[in-house]
Amino acid sequence: MTRQKDERLENLTSRSRWRTILREVIFEADTPAGKAFDVVLIISILLSVTAVMLDSIDSVRALHMSLLYGIEWFFTLLFTAEYILRLLCVGRPVKYALSFYGLVDLLAVIPTYISIVLPGSHYLLVIRILRILRIFRILKLAPYIGEAQFLMKALQSSKRKIFVFLFAVLTMVVIFGSLMYVIEGGENGFTSIPRSIYWAIVTMTTVGYGDISPQTILGQTIASMIMILGYGIIAVPTGIVTVEMSHAFNRKVANQVCPECSAEGHDADAKHCKFCGAAL
Amino acid sequence: MTRQKDERLENLTSRSRWRTILREVIFEADTPAGKAFDVVLIISILLSVTAVMLDSIDSVRALHMSLLYGIEWFFTLLFTAEYILRLLCVGRPVKYALSFYGLVDLLAVIPTYISIVLPGSHYLLVIRILRILRIFRILKLAPYIGEAQFLMKALQSSKRKIFVFLFAVLTMVVIFGSLMYVIEGGENGFTSIPRSIYWAIVTMTTVGYGDISPQTILGQTIASMIMILGYGIIAVPTGIVTVEMSHAFNRKVANQVCPECSAEGHDADAKHCKFCGAAL
Amino acid sequence: MTRQKDERLENLTSRSRWRTILREVIFEADTPAGKAFDVVLIISILLSVTAVMLDSIDSVRALHMSLLYGIEWFFTLLFTAEYILRLLCVGRPVKYALSFYGLVDLLAVIPTYISIVLPGSHYLLVIRILRILRIFRILKLAPYIGEAQFLMKALQSSKRKIFVFLFAVLTMVVIFGSLMYVIEGGENGFTSIPRSIYWAIVTMTTVGYGDISPQTILGQTIASMIMILGYGIIAVPTGIVTVEMSHAFNRKVANQVCPECSAEGHDADAKHCKFCGAAL
Amino acid sequence: MTRQKDERLENLTSRSRWRTILREVIFEADTPAGKAFDVVLIISILLSVTAVMLDSIDSVRALHMSLLYGIEWFFTLLFTAEYILRLLCVGRPVKYALSFYGLVDLLAVIPTYISIVLPGSHYLLVIRILRILRIFRILKLAPYIGEAQFLMKALQSSKRKIFVFLFAVLTMVVIFGSLMYVIEGGENGFTSIPRSIYWAIVTMTTVGYGDISPQTILGQTIASMIMILGYGIIAVPTGIVTVEMSHAFNRKVANQVCPECSAEGHDADAKHCKFCGAAL
Repeated sequence: MTRQKDERLENLTSRSRWRTILREVIFEADTPAGKAFDVVLIISILLSVTAVMLDSIDSVRALHMSLLYGIEWFFTLLFTAEYILRLLCVGRPVKYALSFYGLVDLLAVIPTYISIVLPGSHYLLVIRILRILRIFRILKLAPYIGEAQFLMKALQSSKRKIFVFLFAVLTMVVIFGSLMYVIEGGENGFTSIPRSIYWAIVTMTTVGYGDISPQTILGQTIASMIMILGYGIIAVPTGIVTVEMSHAFNRKVANQVCPECSAEGHDADAKHCKFCGAAL
Repeated sequence: MTRQKDERLENLTSRSRWRTILREVIFEADTPAGKAFDVVLIISILLSVTAVMLDSIDSVRALHMSLLYGIEWFFTLLFTAEYILRLLCVGRPVKYALSFYGLVDLLAVIPTYISIVLPGSHYLLVIRILRILRIFRILKLAPYIGEAQFLMKALQSSKRKIFVFLFAVLTMVVIFGSLMYVIEGGENGFTSIPRSIYWAIVTMTTVGYGDISPQTILGQTIASMIMILGYGIIAVPTGIVTVEMSHAFNRKVANQVCPECSAEGHDADAKHCKFCGAAL
Repeated sequence: MTRQKDERLENLTSRSRWRTILREVIFEADTPAGKAFDVVLIISILLSVTAVMLDSIDSVRALHMSLLYGIEWFFTLLFTAEYILRLLCVGRPVKYALSFYGLVDLLAVIPTYISIVLPGSHYLLVIRILRILRIFRILKLAPYIGEAQFLMKALQSSKRKIFVFLFAVLTMVVIFGSLMYVIEGGENGFTSIPRSIYWAIVTMTTVGYGDISPQTILGQTIASMIMILGYGIIAVPTGIVTVEMSHAFNRKVANQVCPECSAEGHDADAKHCKFCGAAL
Repeated sequence: MTRQKDERLENLTSRSRWRTILREVIFEADTPAGKAFDVVLIISILLSVTAVMLDSIDSVRALHMSLLYGIEWFFTLLFTAEYILRLLCVGRPVKYALSFYGLVDLLAVIPTYISIVLPGSHYLLVIRILRILRIFRILKLAPYIGEAQFLMKALQSSKRKIFVFLFAVLTMVVIFGSLMYVIEGGENGFTSIPRSIYWAIVTMTTVGYGDISPQTILGQTIASMIMILGYGIIAVPTGIVTVEMSHAFNRKVANQVCPECSAEGHDADAKHCKFCGAAL
């Protein structure tokens, strides 16, 4: 790894040396400086997100307004500096600026600056909560990336099945919601079809707020059917994802081929082919 | 594919050429015209269903009554034309008219015509929401059909196990509901056995509206048992469906073909065809 | 099957012929008469349970009191006759009377007779709802028995794991409930430890009535932890049951041994050993 | 087993004989005396925990104060005696005192003594509920240990995947919560971002108290998305745990031993040892 980097350093003689070092610290995690940078950044992000949250509580805001104001500007300037450094040391700044994380980085600091120009833009400041997404970039470098990829892969290969399932759920929810609108009517809270569909979703996903609930016997009977249906069909996405994960897991384990008989399906800890006995 | 169609066109000289072309556009999805027709139809269905939903919100209805009226008649005439075309170009019109999708197609337009004869048939118009079912016919032609069939197959082969499970759940719900009716009584909302059973379903499926909830200590103890039971036994249908899906999936994966008898469905580690014994 | 029965009839010459026939009709399901008896019995049970349910609704009871009274006595006499016939034709009447279904049969008729002696024993009549359990006896004879046994086997072999899981859940619920009792206190509805534990069960099983809900920030933080915990650990019993079912399923499928190489693990539809090619 | 113990008794001549016997009774479960001690201890723990619970109910406390006071001191003295005996007979008392169970044992008796010095330390007494944790130590000796280890192993090997999943859930909850804070605002109960995040957790985990629920159409639309998301992604941890359990289970099942190298863990269809290549 170190050799590779040395070569890269030599190849990049045209660029200034400090940019390369900076890029390694900021964008990579395999040097002590890079790791330290990541840890400091995660803590900064978590602290600044906590400050945004506290700022939204009226009582806390009333008591510690100036403190929160100071913290906010400290982190805004810090993240602005980080954003500029990233722009400077990256190969193609425009591509970075327009990438997902580039936009998140920008959205993490912009609202604070706008709040000077447009005072009272209270809700705009909530955008800063998106800073939490920046942690995912750092996780990307960590050993967790393999696990995250495993989960994403299993979800992606079951994408179509889940789409069919979701569409079936939506259809059921639309039909049951409309049915309940007719049965219960506005006086029991089912004032319109969209509201009845909202109730059907609340019921079928077993959330059950209870802000709207059927009052007639027929309505309660149909509600019972929706509940049992929702309780039962959760088995479908669970089955889909489990089967795909099991497949992905087995593939990860069984990636060795016997040199003698070309048999596959050996365990990760196997040293000999289980069919012909040849050494793997 | 094109050759097949040409042959069909020649064989069907007795029929008018335009009916065959029309049928291909309407009922199939492998020509550009057929695909375009499907896309237009899906958008029309979604728009008309949205219009029906908006029509049920009193405030929207008061503001945009004439607009919604116009949209409704536009889609009704469009779907009527489509229905007539389907009847004309299909081989056996009566069979189509009495099929599931034929009835849905009819139910999608009839309520609007009836509303002229019978004004005030407010709830009748809700039937038009069934138009959403028509999307499934189009999905049937798309690549999603394989995934949908996979899900249906897994559910169907576990039909009996799920029936036994559902019957056991219903029995538990009836007995626990009756028990709570005795323990809590009418003053705490458990006014009758059906209502107590409704509460037991709400609780066991973990929906938990909270419109009825036990007040006595004994009632709360039994409610706790129902909750833990309901929380735990969701594992049963999930297990059933997962195992059936895993089985269906493994069969699909093992698609090695026997060179002798062309049989499929061999295990990944099979050396001989399991049907004729020939070496794979 | 018929031959077996003929032999049995000859062997049982000491017993009266009608008792044997009666037993076949009542206790078995492989003759047309036996099947008809089962169907009539299931319908009778469902009707009588429905009558008990309707009887508990005050408005229905007020309107149709004499009708429900007549129906109740009709079914009580019918089930009494059936109970006496079962006692008469069974080999060991005492053993049957003390068995689970014997007791259920008795409990299905006794309350109605007691209601003459003890008028006003309103709640005693609810015991008649246990009649629903009698349907399971009939299912025992049906093709569903195999599926029911499969489910019971999978649940039984995972009994110990589920016990460990349930005990862990109960411990968490007790500790979290006590913690919330200290944090929230009586003024927010957490008036005692048992009530707080009840709340913790309602929350952890994701039922969430909302009759008691935390009001302090610390309480809501801990409640969030309980919810995420409850949401996540449902994976544990699901995993246990799925793995056991998968094992039971595979065992059912793979019960053929190759006569040549004694290999196991063949599919249910295999005709040749997949390892050596010998005919199975 | 008995021979082993005899040897140990001889080897430990330097120690007093009664300490060894005491240790066997208290810390082990394979002698009749040890088993009896465990059963008595489990019953004592359950009774004392029940007493602590009942003590927190105001009405019970008012009626039976002196009885509960007596029970509490009886169990406190019993557990104190047990704690001192454990300290006496264990090899390294300091290590035991600082271990998890040593601290739980201390916390089980300390609060009662403090309540003499500091009267009114009402909430301190709740700590005694931790006595329930002591049952786990006894389970450790029972046949349940294998099952508990199996569950722990499956959970531990899926630790990282579950961490990634939980972090993704937390991020979604933070972003959706902040979004709802902006959309619904304080007048509908979403008074601050932390409170909105609390609502998002209540919704995504399908608990659904209903103490806070969206009132605007946009808010209800986003709430529906959160519900369907929460309903669907429960499949992810379930899939993870099921796959890990299945893997752990298969390893346990395949317990064929190699005649050459005594290795275990071969597949059911293996013909040769996968470690040394010897024929099985």
